[in-house]
Amino acid sequence: MIDVPLSEKKLIQRIRRSARGDRDRDKDKSVVTGIGDDCAVLRVPPGHELLVTTDFTIENVHFRRDWHRPELVGRRCLTRGLSDIAAMGGEPLAAFLSLAVSSDVPQKWVDRFLKGVLDLAAEFKVPLAGGDTAQSRAGIQADIVVVGSVPKGKAVLRSGANAGEQIYVTGELGGSAAALARLMELKPGGPEYFQHFSRHSHPFARVAVGRWLRQRGVASAMIDLSDGLSTDLDHICQESHVGAEIEAEAIPRAQVGKKPVALELALHGGDDYELLFTSAATVPSKIAGVPVTRIGRTTQSAEMRLIGVDGKVRLLKAGGWEHFQGNQKS
Amino acid sequence: MIDVPLSEKKLIQRIRRSARGDRDRDKDKSVVTGIGDDCAVLRVPPGHELLVTTDFTIENVHFRRDWHRPELVGRRCLTRGLSDIAAMGGEPLAAFLSLAVSSDVPQKWVDRFLKGVLDLAAEFKVPLAGGDTAQSRAGIQADIVVVGSVPKGKAVLRSGANAGEQIYVTGELGGSAAALARLMELKPGGPEYFQHFSRHSHPFARVAVGRWLRQRGVASAMIDLSDGLSTDLDHICQESHVGAEIEAEAIPRAQVGKKPVALELALHGGDDYELLFTSAATVPSKIAGVPVTRIGRTTQSAEMRLIGVDGKVRLLKAGGWEHFQGNQKS
Repeated sequence: MIDVPLSEKKLIQRIRRSARGDRDRDKDKSVVTGIGDDCAVLRVPPGHELLVTTDFTIENVHFRRDWHRPELVGRRCLTRGLSDIAAMGGEPLAAFLSLAVSSDVPQKWVDRFLKGVLDLAAEFKVPLAGGDTAQSRAGIQADIVVVGSVPKGKAVLRSGANAGEQIYVTGELGGSAAALARLMELKPGGPEYFQHFSRHSHPFARVAVGRWLRQRGVASAMIDLSDGLSTDLDHICQESHVGAEIEAEAIPRAQVGKKPVALELALHGGDDYELLFTSAATVPSKIAGVPVTRIGRTTQSAEMRLIGVDGKVRLLKAGGWEHFQGNQKS
Repeated sequence: MIDVPLSEKKLIQRIRRSARGDRDRDKDKSVVTGIGDDCAVLRVPPGHELLVTTDFTIENVHFRRDWHRPELVGRRCLTRGLSDIAAMGGEPLAAFLSLAVSSDVPQKWVDRFLKGVLDLAAEFKVPLAGGDTAQSRAGIQADIVVVGSVPKGKAVLRSGANAGEQIYVTGELGGSAAALARLMELKPGGPEYFQHFSRHSHPFARVAVGRWLRQRGVASAMIDLSDGLSTDLDHICQESHVGAEIEAEAIPRAQVGKKPVALELALHGGDDYELLFTSAATVPSKIAGVPVTRIGRTTQSAEMRLIGVDGKVRLLKAGGWEHFQGNQKS
């Protein structure tokens, strides 16, 4: 019903050509047959279970074309999937990209978006093994699927936490939300807006940390921080039937210039793609080169509590941003 | 940025609740952990390889809300994935649905769409093991992922055809395109428009036929007919480096009332979800209850040729519809 400058066929050829390079670089041959058949054929290592995650990336919901470079949109698109694999302690095997674009999207934008996806795929040695392309009636919709594997029975679930364990996060929190808050304040502009916001402008999935924790059986429960600490911690509490007590002062906040981001952003801001996990074991302060910080403990109560910098205890509610649709509190 | 009557959270709960029923019915326990963690955890049978396929279903590209019942849209959405698994000779293990809906889509529509997906999932005993939900800025976008398995090295590829083999199709062709042509001619109306068009109104993936052919090693190459006979045959020819000679008279055309559909529709019409395969072996006229018809043979030439009812030989070009966007010839 509509004409697009970039036909479906061309888009498939482009992805196929780009992905083929990746495939040649792929050492472990997890992809037996990639793009170009009805299905991709993958090999799952013996004794392993399969992990599957899917994540939508939608224009004006997850990104804005006037705010975000196409390479960043592509990079974040794949990061979301890789981060889910990391949160299970798994190894990514292959990625699949379904992409719908409307006629007003320049081919150059699509090329740069694909470059963002494929560069990150190469960093993680994850071949792009398939997907789908379609014409969209409005804007850009991408759905990323990442398939991974984990030794049988060893996936780190959200449901494994016990009361009386310690709660940890990797890296620093709130940096991505701070970048977004800045963008919403200021008129959209050049890349200088992002210079202090590396988690927003260069998201990175903590696959190596997840692997380390799974290999040593250190994490009892784990999730990645995509919706924000308070929301994702709530998921662990709900699935594990525990409560939590978080120390505000302990939360590692991202720095903007020389100032830490507001506590609110570190508590509720999304898109950091750090890992949140619980453990009864001794946890080092650095894993796979990434700082790890204890921020509280699990409790028998069903509630989440926040011990403020002032020592006062408040009820903590899941309030992570659902991206930037304005629902600050759910 | 927008408010939707059906929140993401509610949609996930709804899918989770519906899917849980399926999971309980699931006998072989391929899904270890379904909806509710960062990834689904699946078990792949020992000695099997993994199949993965993803398919977009987009409003006003693949369906129209004023033409297609929501249950049919859901049913076709999953059929597209199951049909790809069938075309490899595989067994579907689990499905994943990513669904983005805009604020103008009534909750009732989404419920009926999900019913279409889940009823078909139950027919094929394929649990819905995960997915993603998001708000869309315009209309409905669904991406279905189906994961399946096939004994190692036994997937039936598009690339396995040899010159001098026979070419077969299952069922009847052109029925879905005829229904669509009728809809485009007439003002959209009630379900009576579909009464003669069962392949359009009740699409069904040929998983049992694909399995039969794979188990007996009968098919050298196979594809499902989603884009139309001429386009999908061209895919086999390209990937297998063979040509093809099709006998117009032999093509099993769908009946509309008491008349067969136009040859053009049987040759180029999409969305029939029948199987097209090549074989050097003896092929029965019925497999798993489905009629199988020989329609031609593979050749050493790189061309596709059509032997007309008049005996004249014409060049056949890939001209399957890319859905109903008007690109009749590619």
